[in-house]
Amino acid sequence: MNTHFTSRLHAAIREKQTPALVGIDPRFELLPEEIQEIAKSSNRNMESAIALAFAEFSIRLIDVISPLVPAVKPQAAFFEELGPTGCLVLADIIRHARKAGLIVICDGKRGDIGSTAEAYARAYLAGADRSASPWGADALTVNPYLGADTLEPFVTVCEERGAGIYVLVRTSNPGAGEFQDRVTGGVKHFEHVARVVESLAERTAENDWGCVGAVVGATYPEELAQLRSAMPTTPLLVPGYGSQGGTAADVAAAFTSDGLGAVVNSSRGINFAFRSRKYRDQFAPHEWEQAIERATRDMIADLAEHTPAGKLKT
Amino acid sequence: MNTHFTSRLHAAIREKQTPALVGIDPRFELLPEEIQEIAKSSNRNMESAIALAFAEFSIRLIDVISPLVPAVKPQAAFFEELGPTGCLVLADIIRHARKAGLIVICDGKRGDIGSTAEAYARAYLAGADRSASPWGADALTVNPYLGADTLEPFVTVCEERGAGIYVLVRTSNPGAGEFQDRVTGGVKHFEHVARVVESLAERTAENDWGCVGAVVGATYPEELAQLRSAMPTTPLLVPGYGSQGGTAADVAAAFTSDGLGAVVNSSRGINFAFRSRKYRDQFAPHEWEQAIERATRDMIADLAEHTPAGKLKT
Repeated sequence: MNTHFTSRLHAAIREKQTPALVGIDPRFELLPEEIQEIAKSSNRNMESAIALAFAEFSIRLIDVISPLVPAVKPQAAFFEELGPTGCLVLADIIRHARKAGLIVICDGKRGDIGSTAEAYARAYLAGADRSASPWGADALTVNPYLGADTLEPFVTVCEERGAGIYVLVRTSNPGAGEFQDRVTGGVKHFEHVARVVESLAERTAENDWGCVGAVVGATYPEELAQLRSAMPTTPLLVPGYGSQGGTAADVAAAFTSDGLGAVVNSSRGINFAFRSRKYRDQFAPHEWEQAIERATRDMIADLAEHTPAGKLKT
Repeated sequence: MNTHFTSRLHAAIREKQTPALVGIDPRFELLPEEIQEIAKSSNRNMESAIALAFAEFSIRLIDVISPLVPAVKPQAAFFEELGPTGCLVLADIIRHARKAGLIVICDGKRGDIGSTAEAYARAYLAGADRSASPWGADALTVNPYLGADTLEPFVTVCEERGAGIYVLVRTSNPGAGEFQDRVTGGVKHFEHVARVVESLAERTAENDWGCVGAVVGATYPEELAQLRSAMPTTPLLVPGYGSQGGTAADVAAAFTSDGLGAVVNSSRGINFAFRSRKYRDQFAPHEWEQAIERATRDMIADLAEHTPAGKLKT
């Protein structure tokens, strides 16, 4: 079993008829009251108690959204914040998501040189066979600062296992341009990184798409359009929709005309929908799972209406 | 208790009379036979069995070197490769190293935006009080690709807790220049990152040194000299000595004239000294701890002879 990452992702996108990607970003103070209670009534130490709450929340979130979306993106940092116990929970929820048929993109933004990069790749990237690595993810986000040679060990593991990476190209934060927009010989830094990523995508392509992708923020729609055309073989992961201010219209350019080539992520807007202005009047606090479902369905409809994702063929 | 990271580091360097930093980089196939046996004779699953061996090796390594050097740098990737069990071991050995009086720089090369960066900072950076975070490190290596705004959450935690970060500026890998050497308006990319880092160091300085440092590879001695003078307030972490080809003469420029301002890392050259051409004739395989001690003492003598570290005052 070694099915190409992007082929598997696109099959899942076609099956669910949406490129919506749900981030799993638990933060204790924002969790539903009943979930916070799990930790508060536990006899464990603080980190273990919160880890228990994170596990319960994440599993129930996955159970609500797994019939609706093709993929999830757990944010490693929020689990690592709880120490090794949090890491156990991260591995657990990745396993749960994959058993539920979801593609899992672990958001760890790893990067290092040589055999160290290889260790990160082997750690997180299981690819098609979820038992092929201890963390068991389909894909991992990767930081390119150290140089193109440091992406190679990830690419090797991706090809061996049918896994994917998403390399940071243009991030969604306000200060993203500080380093990423510096111009050398008419080429911005992120454009140069994009070229390297596209060449890796071309090298690893199956059905016109590489298993090496790029992270490009929804908060910079012009760059997104430009990068989609400069990187025709590179699948995109687009953060910044929803809470960070990106709209469906902003992300429309991320897709090819058939609605493929990108996943659009929402984290806070889905995870904590029950706390948002938009949903808190419709759902009582204990109806947080219904709020998550509604927010997910609304995101799917929004993407279908305002982007080529509406033209997805089964 | 909130003592500035670099003040604590410099006190440790003066106490041990050396800026030698030992990397903790266990790799199963390179471990001593007797340590590999621990895993092979275990009934646990493969990852747990190897984790057990990593714990034993790392603890014994720490016990050998803790009287000799001021600091250690565990490489997170090799522990994460074993999944959550590896993470437990990483936290354990950090705790053991700190109890042994060592400064611990966790080499995780983390980086993300906003509250996610904050989660990484709170996870790894304990600073002066090792119980202040679940991983308990004094410092963490950090990747700057996402922008200067994404370094701020780390800086905040550093100041609160007496912790430090080392931002990747010029890495030691062969392809480091691909992105890092791109020139904009006469300024190379890594020089621009260096300016940002120096300004953060200035902002956080105590006794002339910031708690924000930079990673600059020994394999590029000219850049190292240039960066030492461009970043007078920034403590440097210099990888690439030994196995990667950097010599003591190559790293001499990292120091100020009093031998402060830098730590020089060796990982493989120390960890697996018993396998190296230089030491394998002097030490039998079961004398791997003696080989580690000899290699550490040789590195200390080499740095004392060929760099300003020989002028360290107590």
